[in-house]
Amino acid sequence: MIIVMKKNATEAELEAVKDAIIRLGYKPHAIQGVERTVIGAVGHEDKTPLQILEQTEGVEAVIPILKPWKLVSRDIKPERSVVDVDGVIIGGKEITIIAGPCSVESEEQIIETAQAVRAAGAKILRGGAYKPRTSPYAFQGLEITGLKLLAQARSLTGLKIVTEIVSVSEIDLICEYSDMIQIGARNCQNYALLKRVGQTRLPVLLKRGMATTVKEFLMSAEYIMSQGNYQVVLCERGIRTFEDSTRFTLDLNCVPVLNELTHLPVIVDPSHGTGNWRYVTPMGRAAIAAGADGLTVEVHPNPREAFSDGPQSLKPEKFTEFMSEVRKIALAMGRDLAIPKI
Amino acid sequence: MIIVMKKNATEAELEAVKDAIIRLGYKPHAIQGVERTVIGAVGHEDKTPLQILEQTEGVEAVIPILKPWKLVSRDIKPERSVVDVDGVIIGGKEITIIAGPCSVESEEQIIETAQAVRAAGAKILRGGAYKPRTSPYAFQGLEITGLKLLAQARSLTGLKIVTEIVSVSEIDLICEYSDMIQIGARNCQNYALLKRVGQTRLPVLLKRGMATTVKEFLMSAEYIMSQGNYQVVLCERGIRTFEDSTRFTLDLNCVPVLNELTHLPVIVDPSHGTGNWRYVTPMGRAAIAAGADGLTVEVHPNPREAFSDGPQSLKPEKFTEFMSEVRKIALAMGRDLAIPKI
Amino acid sequence: MIIVMKKNATEAELEAVKDAIIRLGYKPHAIQGVERTVIGAVGHEDKTPLQILEQTEGVEAVIPILKPWKLVSRDIKPERSVVDVDGVIIGGKEITIIAGPCSVESEEQIIETAQAVRAAGAKILRGGAYKPRTSPYAFQGLEITGLKLLAQARSLTGLKIVTEIVSVSEIDLICEYSDMIQIGARNCQNYALLKRVGQTRLPVLLKRGMATTVKEFLMSAEYIMSQGNYQVVLCERGIRTFEDSTRFTLDLNCVPVLNELTHLPVIVDPSHGTGNWRYVTPMGRAAIAAGADGLTVEVHPNPREAFSDGPQSLKPEKFTEFMSEVRKIALAMGRDLAIPKI
Amino acid sequence: MIIVMKKNATEAELEAVKDAIIRLGYKPHAIQGVERTVIGAVGHEDKTPLQILEQTEGVEAVIPILKPWKLVSRDIKPERSVVDVDGVIIGGKEITIIAGPCSVESEEQIIETAQAVRAAGAKILRGGAYKPRTSPYAFQGLEITGLKLLAQARSLTGLKIVTEIVSVSEIDLICEYSDMIQIGARNCQNYALLKRVGQTRLPVLLKRGMATTVKEFLMSAEYIMSQGNYQVVLCERGIRTFEDSTRFTLDLNCVPVLNELTHLPVIVDPSHGTGNWRYVTPMGRAAIAAGADGLTVEVHPNPREAFSDGPQSLKPEKFTEFMSEVRKIALAMGRDLAIPKI
Repeated sequence: MIIVMKKNATEAELEAVKDAIIRLGYKPHAIQGVERTVIGAVGHEDKTPLQILEQTEGVEAVIPILKPWKLVSRDIKPERSVVDVDGVIIGGKEITIIAGPCSVESEEQIIETAQAVRAAGAKILRGGAYKPRTSPYAFQGLEITGLKLLAQARSLTGLKIVTEIVSVSEIDLICEYSDMIQIGARNCQNYALLKRVGQTRLPVLLKRGMATTVKEFLMSAEYIMSQGNYQVVLCERGIRTFEDSTRFTLDLNCVPVLNELTHLPVIVDPSHGTGNWRYVTPMGRAAIAAGADGLTVEVHPNPREAFSDGPQSLKPEKFTEFMSEVRKIALAMGRDLAIPKI
Repeated sequence: MIIVMKKNATEAELEAVKDAIIRLGYKPHAIQGVERTVIGAVGHEDKTPLQILEQTEGVEAVIPILKPWKLVSRDIKPERSVVDVDGVIIGGKEITIIAGPCSVESEEQIIETAQAVRAAGAKILRGGAYKPRTSPYAFQGLEITGLKLLAQARSLTGLKIVTEIVSVSEIDLICEYSDMIQIGARNCQNYALLKRVGQTRLPVLLKRGMATTVKEFLMSAEYIMSQGNYQVVLCERGIRTFEDSTRFTLDLNCVPVLNELTHLPVIVDPSHGTGNWRYVTPMGRAAIAAGADGLTVEVHPNPREAFSDGPQSLKPEKFTEFMSEVRKIALAMGRDLAIPKI
Repeated sequence: MIIVMKKNATEAELEAVKDAIIRLGYKPHAIQGVERTVIGAVGHEDKTPLQILEQTEGVEAVIPILKPWKLVSRDIKPERSVVDVDGVIIGGKEITIIAGPCSVESEEQIIETAQAVRAAGAKILRGGAYKPRTSPYAFQGLEITGLKLLAQARSLTGLKIVTEIVSVSEIDLICEYSDMIQIGARNCQNYALLKRVGQTRLPVLLKRGMATTVKEFLMSAEYIMSQGNYQVVLCERGIRTFEDSTRFTLDLNCVPVLNELTHLPVIVDPSHGTGNWRYVTPMGRAAIAAGADGLTVEVHPNPREAFSDGPQSLKPEKFTEFMSEVRKIALAMGRDLAIPKI
Repeated sequence: MIIVMKKNATEAELEAVKDAIIRLGYKPHAIQGVERTVIGAVGHEDKTPLQILEQTEGVEAVIPILKPWKLVSRDIKPERSVVDVDGVIIGGKEITIIAGPCSVESEEQIIETAQAVRAAGAKILRGGAYKPRTSPYAFQGLEITGLKLLAQARSLTGLKIVTEIVSVSEIDLICEYSDMIQIGARNCQNYALLKRVGQTRLPVLLKRGMATTVKEFLMSAEYIMSQGNYQVVLCERGIRTFEDSTRFTLDLNCVPVLNELTHLPVIVDPSHGTGNWRYVTPMGRAAIAAGADGLTVEVHPNPREAFSDGPQSLKPEKFTEFMSEVRKIALAMGRDLAIPKI
């Protein structure tokens, strides 16, 4: 921490701050500037107790120096991590595509979608069985039936499964049926849920909250890792801003920022990040060009009849075009994206 | 819903949209404008299925008309509601002050604070036993010990108790020890938690999420009420914006907006909403002048040694001044705020 | 400036940074921490050249310490300033109310409004003669005719006049006809205009830009003052955020923040800050309770026929109620707001 | 416009609204819904007068249907426009790169940069002679000397020149020396400047304001075009959000949105959009993958000694790598980016 004294702070105030630093267990180092004095506090790693000095007479500001995260940091592990979803790698040379409907709605819908996205080159099937909906009167998911349908789609297609958890109480069921657990944007700082998921050994797809800073996002990943689960994939999905021509503002800046700060793989969700199927392909391409390791995309065989998120879902034929567009960028980036031959 | 056709939409596209509206169970009413045609869709209340028409050829936009909430609405219940916290009324003529430390830290700390805030006129004691902290390495609360200390403070002072729930698993304990349950900003859209709390009959203090719109905030209250618990108090506590001279931007606009849209009581948290004790008193006054029914404020006997949120906590003597300042505004507003005589 | 070295920075990198600091004309003071080294750079006031060290090997961050403003600062002038608008004081004990239509539209409209707002207690008449409109096809103001009508209203009522400047080319005309110059939100960082206005000796009403931080807002005031014009009043008028139930988010937090940082008077515009006449009175009250020195409010004799901003304008009879409400809060704050007896 | 009546609006209120619509010169068409009535107002194009109906008894909301822009719209001109900067095309098959320092500082600096960026494949040289700086005490540009140095760099290298205008008073000089006029983010809604620039026939590079919505951005372009200058290039350069790990949030979503709404070329500024040279290359690639027609990038021969914006400037050798990276994406997009052979 750096403690900045006010311009007109007295000698007595300066001494009082130094004493307080010592009392809190740190060593003060004062630098006398032309206009004011700043004091560095040196000592053990956790500097949060020093924040309170902001309330002290003569102090103008207390400025943190250290980054608060550890296990997620590239300072600790410079080489990039890969996450292994039962054989499908996220963070390797290959770009990983996760695709499927917002919600699992019926056997026909999920099987048809699974076959279509597999044919186009997706490796992981997404689909919600438990849905966090803004309205209590909206469709809340098929729950256990949905999980079973996802498992059925997996055995038919070989795709891996990722599905969202909305409550600690579903954890055992989701671990039984799914290959990867998704934590949605609205639960990005639901720390009880993060800790519980951290106690499993299933890979986690952690979506950024719509008002979560990059630093807080990393702290949420740190929650999971602090419980021993290191298989975390970060997912940017749009943040809330004043702009209203899209549903959210996809913050692709965070892709190179995260790639610099953390060793964890980073993927992007252009469906939620734009809220409009017309923009999914250009923003999917842009995400890969920014350095993302994969994409998660909403695909529905008949978006007009989707129970949720229809406007941002691609039809299977549009998804095939999407894959071909994204593949060109992946190759230009020196990465791979295998698309099955028909 | 209003479906706006594109300027150059064909007659066939118009007919296709009308057919789709009928197929979805609504009646179309077209209005031929000078530049384009718009279609009103009339029918049963839930219009969400119509959103998907945005994907249809010739359609430019689908615009919702109805507000999605019901039980929270003043359309349904024009008169203001009051919430009864075991005898302490929120939403009546009297302004209600909730005060206490961010976290319960020790018997001495909570008892000392309770006595001080009661002497100054607070009616409800706040204090966290379970803490949602950004870092997994930060103090996470005294848990059951904290709840017991709160109950002890209640029996000594007669104050009512409000404490935050961070996970469904604590619900029984909190119902046993607390008079009111707080749902924190980070859990404002944790729907599993909202539903579970809605199944209790304890009054709920629902804090607005830092990126939650007023509409979504009302939908979160609707979640609780939809389960049968009508004792909900809404709390504005600052939203996330670009401004960085305060920790959050306290959105006092939402006070008159909420007072227009809902019958539920509205209170404001100037401690979290500014992040700086220096601004708590002016913003507390402003909240009451905007029409709020109460305030929740952080008070700590020794903020420099607080385990959390020290910089925004008032010392007891500052809290006494705060109460006297807020009282003047309450009286100017034609409301009451009784301060005990010593 | 504080230069923070990376955790794994080498001794050679540290030395290179120290050399660079010396070359740039400052003295380096290194503090060896447990995890990393930070270097304070001491020297003449302008530290911006040091920012470039962010590009140097081994450097993690460069953190500014000093506030960049001078003339606006309470460090330099602790006592509050008052601005004198040809005899009407802003920043004194009395709350100052500026009122009038968005645009000057006709003789009848501006005279009728002037008489009404004067009768209700306003001291300054606002009205746009040059309008910054989002659309080039919208009404752009009566220009010189508008200025003359304002001057006519002044001689009939004794109110002082404030009107907006949108281009340097109108400066002489506005100085001739107006008592105070308004710089609108969209021109808050139009530095050419700020400088030119700073060369006049007319009081300036500087509105905060919709994405201007408090720090940048103060720097815009500094631009005006740096040219020798010290008569500056700051006006908060709503910032742009994700919230869409109001047109802007009125940031009342900035009132106590500005009162701490600067000696300049601070007023608030609840009409633009909410965009809805229903919320003007509660937010006007709240602004005064937060510590503002005055308000600027849109009043129109017939809002339904206003050329601009009708939805946020008060009718004269509503404005009279507004004044009586605001007055109660002013008195509770220990300030005055004289309302003429009829 | 669609006028939405309140749920409990009376028949008399409905009739009053219809009368008002007729009085304002439109034809009302009421649709009786299950819950409430909505009224479409049909008539001439400008519907703004109808907004005032929001103040009428019984009205809940007034919802605009039409987009307010004309000349910028793809509805009017479906085919994409190209802008011709004295022979360099923006908006064609070839990606156009604009590069150069933030400010022109000296002959040596601008000539060295011009030669370096030309060798790497840039076609247009950028450089500020008039600088809009947040602080009045910061370097404000070399002014006419800067313009002459740019012209000198042009004759030596054949690059075209773009430079920023900050005040109407420089318009003649800039038209004399420059091939393209830049309007900076802070002047995006300086309508006096937009109109004046619209009266020239020089191509315009219009940067989006940091709080300008896509709709307002298009209206700013409409201002220029409404004066007869159709040579407008739109430039996204980052918007203001809560995220603080980058200086701004580059809103790449706006690229496909603008490509859908307007025929004007769209370019992106990853230097200002991130504020950090480390992120310029990934975000430059991403912009092209999102569908941008070009990029503008800050390059400085010695960023450590730059008078402004050093931290976000690329050194010439980094810029050469940047060009090679961007070129790969351009080719993958089916576009060109010629890099001179050495």
